[in-house]
Amino acid sequence: MAPLGIVDMRVVVNAAMSADGKLSTRERTQIEISGPGDFERMDQIRAASDAVMVGVGTVLADDPALTVDDESLREARIERGEPANPARVVADSRVRTPPESRVLDDQADSYLLVSEAAPPDFVAQREKAGATVISAGENRVDLAAAFEELADHGIDQLMVEGGGEIIYSLFEADLVDRLSVFVGSMIIGGREAPTLADGEGFVSSFPELELETVERIDDGVVLRYHVP
Amino acid sequence: MAPLGIVDMRVVVNAAMSADGKLSTRERTQIEISGPGDFERMDQIRAASDAVMVGVGTVLADDPALTVDDESLREARIERGEPANPARVVADSRVRTPPESRVLDDQADSYLLVSEAAPPDFVAQREKAGATVISAGENRVDLAAAFEELADHGIDQLMVEGGGEIIYSLFEADLVDRLSVFVGSMIIGGREAPTLADGEGFVSSFPELELETVERIDDGVVLRYHVP
Repeated sequence: MAPLGIVDMRVVVNAAMSADGKLSTRERTQIEISGPGDFERMDQIRAASDAVMVGVGTVLADDPALTVDDESLREARIERGEPANPARVVADSRVRTPPESRVLDDQADSYLLVSEAAPPDFVAQREKAGATVISAGENRVDLAAAFEELADHGIDQLMVEGGGEIIYSLFEADLVDRLSVFVGSMIIGGREAPTLADGEGFVSSFPELELETVERIDDGVVLRYHVP
Repeated sequence: MAPLGIVDMRVVVNAAMSADGKLSTRERTQIEISGPGDFERMDQIRAASDAVMVGVGTVLADDPALTVDDESLREARIERGEPANPARVVADSRVRTPPESRVLDDQADSYLLVSEAAPPDFVAQREKAGATVISAGENRVDLAAAFEELADHGIDQLMVEGGGEIIYSLFEADLVDRLSVFVGSMIIGGREAPTLADGEGFVSSFPELELETVERIDDGVVLRYHVP
């Protein structure tokens, strides 16, 4: 697939939300929104990506490994001359990813995207834990600049799994090429529960999407958008 | 259609949200999420309902009339022996609906659902403006009790158009029979922007929905759910 967008890398956002747009509860508890069909779909996109990214909030809340679950998908990657798992990328301005996080384990490469305000000893500690640290932006991560560096490391397709803060930042920076959302058949509710796109929010010039496909999976539906 | 649910009345929630679950911006500005096809669909549901309900937040933000737009639909209602427009219902615990609001105009009947804490002079003023005031609940409107009274007034189908606070309250009180959501192909974002279901939010026993139909309309999709 040819890379798209303003950075020479394809950025594919993938998330599961309730029918009212929530990624989890107000207590940030991870809950099962999708089912086995959507899980398999997500695993396939992971396996087809060079790296999988989350915001540091997701690391702190869920401690995900972000690795490919299906062994045959990992084997197919190895046969293609790729590592078994895609790299893990954490957007982490202030370096809050704990050194013992699963995203820093030895199952795959790990990148931390930090800002110039990141404390050098924190950076050194994560590098010692095996992470490649990319510094871009003064106080917040300059995502476009950081993504250019990721592209230089050979990352052609980056899958983004959330949460809502990083997804908003990516739309704000006009870096999203595709968005896939599983809409689960449940209500979570809560004016403080995290949504698919949080941040400050747009008040004009709303990012427009093109709905490409609609597919019923499990007891919900997957909406696939292209970002023109 | 036979009434369903714990109250002898069918409660049909209908709303349009962005792909990230927002009803409007963080500034509560009304924006065009759906298009003419969804507008027509909404108008048909209004015309098929005995009353259309919103929360007082929606009255204060948008001052909607909640009347049927299509003249032929109004004429068909009259031919069926019904008033041209369905009644308007506002959930308004503290009586904040301005007396000059369009929902209180003479185009249709108007009901205000208030709590027992509602100031009697405010109640009298709205009654003078033409509203029927239903009082139920101590400080917040007891929606189940108020709906029983609406059913006694001959309202068999109530369409609820939002906003997110009243929709959450209805799910909390287990009063929703059906939910239709138009998902628009745009991102609004904002951790403080109103969503389809706000309120406190559930942390367990999440209301489950059954996805009945998925239909592409305008540049988005309508998801229709049944609440078992």
